[in-house]
Amino acid sequence: MARVVILGQGYVGSIFAIGVERIKRGDLGYYGIPLANELPIKVEDIEIVGSYDVDKSKIGRPLYEVVKRYWEDEIPESLKNVVVRKGIHLGSLRNLPIEAEGLEDRMTLKEAVEKIVEEWKELKPDVIVNVCTTEAFKPFNSKEELIKAIENDNRERLTATQVYAYAASLYAKEVGGAAFVNAIPTLIANDNAFLELAKESNLVIFGDDGATGATPLTADVLAHLAQRNRYVKDIAQFNIGGNTDFLALTDKDRNKSKEYTKSSVVKDILGYDAPHYIKPTGFLEPLGDKKFIAMHIEYVSFNGAIDELVITGRINDSPALAGLLVDLVRLGKIAVERKEWGTVYEVNAFYMKNPGPAEKGNIPRIIAYEKMRQWAGLKPRWL
Amino acid sequence: MARVVILGQGYVGSIFAIGVERIKRGDLGYYGIPLANELPIKVEDIEIVGSYDVDKSKIGRPLYEVVKRYWEDEIPESLKNVVVRKGIHLGSLRNLPIEAEGLEDRMTLKEAVEKIVEEWKELKPDVIVNVCTTEAFKPFNSKEELIKAIENDNRERLTATQVYAYAASLYAKEVGGAAFVNAIPTLIANDNAFLELAKESNLVIFGDDGATGATPLTADVLAHLAQRNRYVKDIAQFNIGGNTDFLALTDKDRNKSKEYTKSSVVKDILGYDAPHYIKPTGFLEPLGDKKFIAMHIEYVSFNGAIDELVITGRINDSPALAGLLVDLVRLGKIAVERKEWGTVYEVNAFYMKNPGPAEKGNIPRIIAYEKMRQWAGLKPRWL
Amino acid sequence: MARVVILGQGYVGSIFAIGVERIKRGDLGYYGIPLANELPIKVEDIEIVGSYDVDKSKIGRPLYEVVKRYWEDEIPESLKNVVVRKGIHLGSLRNLPIEAEGLEDRMTLKEAVEKIVEEWKELKPDVIVNVCTTEAFKPFNSKEELIKAIENDNRERLTATQVYAYAASLYAKEVGGAAFVNAIPTLIANDNAFLELAKESNLVIFGDDGATGATPLTADVLAHLAQRNRYVKDIAQFNIGGNTDFLALTDKDRNKSKEYTKSSVVKDILGYDAPHYIKPTGFLEPLGDKKFIAMHIEYVSFNGAIDELVITGRINDSPALAGLLVDLVRLGKIAVERKEWGTVYEVNAFYMKNPGPAEKGNIPRIIAYEKMRQWAGLKPRWL
Amino acid sequence: MARVVILGQGYVGSIFAIGVERIKRGDLGYYGIPLANELPIKVEDIEIVGSYDVDKSKIGRPLYEVVKRYWEDEIPESLKNVVVRKGIHLGSLRNLPIEAEGLEDRMTLKEAVEKIVEEWKELKPDVIVNVCTTEAFKPFNSKEELIKAIENDNRERLTATQVYAYAASLYAKEVGGAAFVNAIPTLIANDNAFLELAKESNLVIFGDDGATGATPLTADVLAHLAQRNRYVKDIAQFNIGGNTDFLALTDKDRNKSKEYTKSSVVKDILGYDAPHYIKPTGFLEPLGDKKFIAMHIEYVSFNGAIDELVITGRINDSPALAGLLVDLVRLGKIAVERKEWGTVYEVNAFYMKNPGPAEKGNIPRIIAYEKMRQWAGLKPRWL
Repeated sequence: MARVVILGQGYVGSIFAIGVERIKRGDLGYYGIPLANELPIKVEDIEIVGSYDVDKSKIGRPLYEVVKRYWEDEIPESLKNVVVRKGIHLGSLRNLPIEAEGLEDRMTLKEAVEKIVEEWKELKPDVIVNVCTTEAFKPFNSKEELIKAIENDNRERLTATQVYAYAASLYAKEVGGAAFVNAIPTLIANDNAFLELAKESNLVIFGDDGATGATPLTADVLAHLAQRNRYVKDIAQFNIGGNTDFLALTDKDRNKSKEYTKSSVVKDILGYDAPHYIKPTGFLEPLGDKKFIAMHIEYVSFNGAIDELVITGRINDSPALAGLLVDLVRLGKIAVERKEWGTVYEVNAFYMKNPGPAEKGNIPRIIAYEKMRQWAGLKPRWL
Repeated sequence: MARVVILGQGYVGSIFAIGVERIKRGDLGYYGIPLANELPIKVEDIEIVGSYDVDKSKIGRPLYEVVKRYWEDEIPESLKNVVVRKGIHLGSLRNLPIEAEGLEDRMTLKEAVEKIVEEWKELKPDVIVNVCTTEAFKPFNSKEELIKAIENDNRERLTATQVYAYAASLYAKEVGGAAFVNAIPTLIANDNAFLELAKESNLVIFGDDGATGATPLTADVLAHLAQRNRYVKDIAQFNIGGNTDFLALTDKDRNKSKEYTKSSVVKDILGYDAPHYIKPTGFLEPLGDKKFIAMHIEYVSFNGAIDELVITGRINDSPALAGLLVDLVRLGKIAVERKEWGTVYEVNAFYMKNPGPAEKGNIPRIIAYEKMRQWAGLKPRWL
Repeated sequence: MARVVILGQGYVGSIFAIGVERIKRGDLGYYGIPLANELPIKVEDIEIVGSYDVDKSKIGRPLYEVVKRYWEDEIPESLKNVVVRKGIHLGSLRNLPIEAEGLEDRMTLKEAVEKIVEEWKELKPDVIVNVCTTEAFKPFNSKEELIKAIENDNRERLTATQVYAYAASLYAKEVGGAAFVNAIPTLIANDNAFLELAKESNLVIFGDDGATGATPLTADVLAHLAQRNRYVKDIAQFNIGGNTDFLALTDKDRNKSKEYTKSSVVKDILGYDAPHYIKPTGFLEPLGDKKFIAMHIEYVSFNGAIDELVITGRINDSPALAGLLVDLVRLGKIAVERKEWGTVYEVNAFYMKNPGPAEKGNIPRIIAYEKMRQWAGLKPRWL
Repeated sequence: MARVVILGQGYVGSIFAIGVERIKRGDLGYYGIPLANELPIKVEDIEIVGSYDVDKSKIGRPLYEVVKRYWEDEIPESLKNVVVRKGIHLGSLRNLPIEAEGLEDRMTLKEAVEKIVEEWKELKPDVIVNVCTTEAFKPFNSKEELIKAIENDNRERLTATQVYAYAASLYAKEVGGAAFVNAIPTLIANDNAFLELAKESNLVIFGDDGATGATPLTADVLAHLAQRNRYVKDIAQFNIGGNTDFLALTDKDRNKSKEYTKSSVVKDILGYDAPHYIKPTGFLEPLGDKKFIAMHIEYVSFNGAIDELVITGRINDSPALAGLLVDLVRLGKIAVERKEWGTVYEVNAFYMKNPGPAEKGNIPRIIAYEKMRQWAGLKPRWL
């Protein structure tokens, strides 16, 4: 059994919940889940025990009703048992056309953290999954500064994700072990403040920013060119979508944090910083959750020849990430069982755009995949 | 020093010769050569000592003049020293608008083979590189049958490549070791007849069909999907170009041999035979050596979501292969030094579309690259 | 009222029937119908009175059941009233995995024609729409030869479409006027034998080959370049789909007739025959009715600069044609009312890939659209 | 003879100068010039008599030297006779990595205008072509306000283009007639202040924003869809390039003026404002003058079917515009001869992204082309 709490009951969290329940009912296969059902913990062992959001229209409603907004077909009845709770806001929906409220509206951050930890002690999650909306944030790097910000109720300095991760460390300490999966760009597995805290608190952190969309594909295409010693002249990559995450990214500050994640891949894989333009480009509502991506790469081949590649695609954003979460939840539980407190680069390198810890970079996903399998106790596929 | 004989002085062979000489002069870097200058044998150590063709307008001419047809800029003077010799034809230019003649026009195949072996004993190549035009062929699999076909002067049964590879085995036996690099689709490293012969004759064979163009990229994109357990619904891949090789492929029989090579990658990588349409599509003269490729892939992601990728590109055909040859020649020499008679899967798996021996299949190129580096005595890049 | 008989109850004919009935019920707007509801004859005035096929599993079944194969949602009850009748086969489903039978299996062609004319005299269609599978055919050009072939029961010489068009002329003569819409590549509006017959028999012919898919888009893109006096160096266009029509086109002879239609557009629009590769490329079953197209165009701009365009797309094949038929049926009735016997270039030039009569060619569709509107008595949109 | 003064001796102005001179020498055909040599005024009749810029490194240098920066091959000697003069700056190169100076650094704007008019009276241009860098601007709409701004030396309110256009009207009044071609987004032909002035001053204005790149192609593709009554769900269009104009557009205010121009096309052609994201996206230096464009369109076809088109391309930016200028210069002279003071919609509708006057919108370019031909006294091509 792997007990899960979801932070941010939006598109990704909802598709995750629906997909897992459909698999349990036997309505759906394992496509889109990298490790399918190869792990000792089965997909069918996942149980969603709690859910948090700050959208007023979701708080207090059963999951069954909330996920309906994201799925037209029949919803599994089993989602009637979980009710969405009020979480930490801290402006994470600022500038979005959503009425929001947070626990911290009526208490200090410290009190809010305590309240959440109490709730978790009842819900008993093994793994806490963060799929909040992309935030504008500043990393801490110093554990002391982080704790001070909480103590001083410094709402300008903290984001919801940072507060949740802090709460997770308190919870893990109390119950003897837990995992926190950070699937959004806020640096947690790349922030030494949190890693230090995690090691002291029996917390496993996976992060940061789930590796879906164009970026992991770009990584593999660049690795393909690097291996042939082709010199990449330039890369342009565009992304446009119609879900809340793209709407949130029209906010300049949030966009910036995303850009950082996406760009680092170029230098990590090629070994030099080829001129590139890689950022989420725009919001176009009718595209919905199925984003449009376009990528252009120009490179030098033997004898000075210049080649060009163009990749375009329509990609369902939320299912891609939700499929990864099905693995991450189970791997999180495994890491807790193994007491690998802190973070696990082998897992992050495959599943995350910005794999922690900070001193490690991106490697080609195909290599990362094999290393992750080995970490998980599975046979490599081709190695 | 790595002494090379080129079989088929067309686009690829000419760009290879020009590029190597430009590098020697310091006019060109190592882009497009996968191993750059990391091997103990340097690019500058390559020496072209002989060249064969069956195009009447090339035979007897200095390389310097022949390569001019494929390169507008200045040609290195060093190419004045090699004269193109008459090779084996056996219809390899059949149906193409080229006047051709072969050694076998005036003697039996057996005599032609003997003549070639004599010439090679003078030229003293370490490595013989086959870049003839794509042929319609039938594999042998039995060494006896192959020898019988030569003995009986069975011109219908044999192709130029098969005769050349046979000659290479005789030559290797006499001189104590040599390598034969088969960069075209005719099965040599995948034909047990030739592998058996090679092992007995101190011959190293690399093959078959140099891994350039859309196929290795397809392999890596499919591996990318396979690792995420995405179910590939269908793949369509088109290729159109304007060089002699595309013209040759308008011939139905030649096209078929190409199709075989390109399609096997799907099952090898995915583990199931996703419906696919992968074949060289057409000839369009003004495209020249820079082919246009287009690929469409449709796959199932988590929760049944269906995504689509489209990849298009303009890719210089000949430089891509010529760059690989710069490595293969040096790796061939290394294999001879190590006496690894027969074939070397670690090399083929990265450099060849249809890596021999026959019982082995395709693996993701990114994995193959690391294994090949290890075989070559280099540190893996990411593993 | 416009009474319609459908020849070939496949994908296109079925989507046409479903769409028209859904519009009558108010379930669907006019998207995809070029003239929407601007004509005096309304979409709601269309009545399907008969249907013919040679697929054994369709003959004798109500339309309501047959169209189910092509549409997952609810089917309008109104389609229960029409039963699919046995038509002319003449090998039109040859080599396809369909069990077929034709009227001519048990009688001469002449008798079959008579039987059909009798049936039509009962059904009283104003317009007969031909959407059979693409055929391998030879045009007649001489009316006498056509009549002789029917009289002599020359089954090798004739295709189903040719026999149907002949029957239409007999029927039109008897009832005083009718229209025949040929939406497939077989030359009818481009065959003088049929035009001569039509003029004598009070028949209006529209044809040939409904202008859907990549070809009309290519025409407009080429016109765009021609107007800027850009010199087109080369054009490659690929098409791959999974419906019966693509399966039929894997047959080499059928493919050839399609290729003719598609290629003529280049010279017609540009004024010179730019090197091109334009043909239906392949069959890939999972693509279904939604084909994948890819097009590459290279052209010379001012001062010798070379530009490139790539167009790719996923396009639903059958609805595109079905939408045109909604207009063609109504325009056919209008032409009959105006007694414009023979053919009407103004209509063909917009709606057909190969607009008859033969001596006329393609013009940019945007121009053709305005001329067609004027012919139909509507105000031009931009002119 | 058509005497031309160029304002802004950058990429476009330089390719224009080189191309025209190469044509005079017989080195180049008429590709990329929409009307080729059909007009009574021949391409060979164009004479460049003056050039203005504010880049310190260009002022005072012969055209021959300046154009070298944009062209690697041999430069026609005839360009040695024109020297680049100092023009109006007003911050038009602000934030760009270029050292700039303007006439107004040492005198009032009014004096600068007088100086320029005096110089033009010597140079005697028939046509003044404005190809300055894209500016952030505010239209005037009132002639009085415009004149007041000049009189009051209001440097914040005016841009270089506005001052040049004002100078052109004074010059035209004095010499009895002249033309001003505004090829950049600043509204001139769409600003009633300038049109009123032009009518009083014997000035012809063509504008605004030369119709090159993705926008006119988008217009024709949208017209293609509109004519088939397909409902456009959404359009995304990206543009990235490496020339100074793209660098200038990284400036938010300049970008905004561009966006306005590009977006209006959607509503003008479709008749409704389909959701769209159309803007210049980014700067990527190695792309140089050959920009990369990507466009995604999703639309509804018959029976509710949803289709998708993706268009990508590499397009040389400056030659495309330079080719249009070759026509515009000659059409400007023709308009002067016909005394069509003010502006000419028939010309603007084909050649401009934002055709003046303001109350007129975009029409499909293919239609606009035919109307422009008719205005120019040429036979329509297809109408």
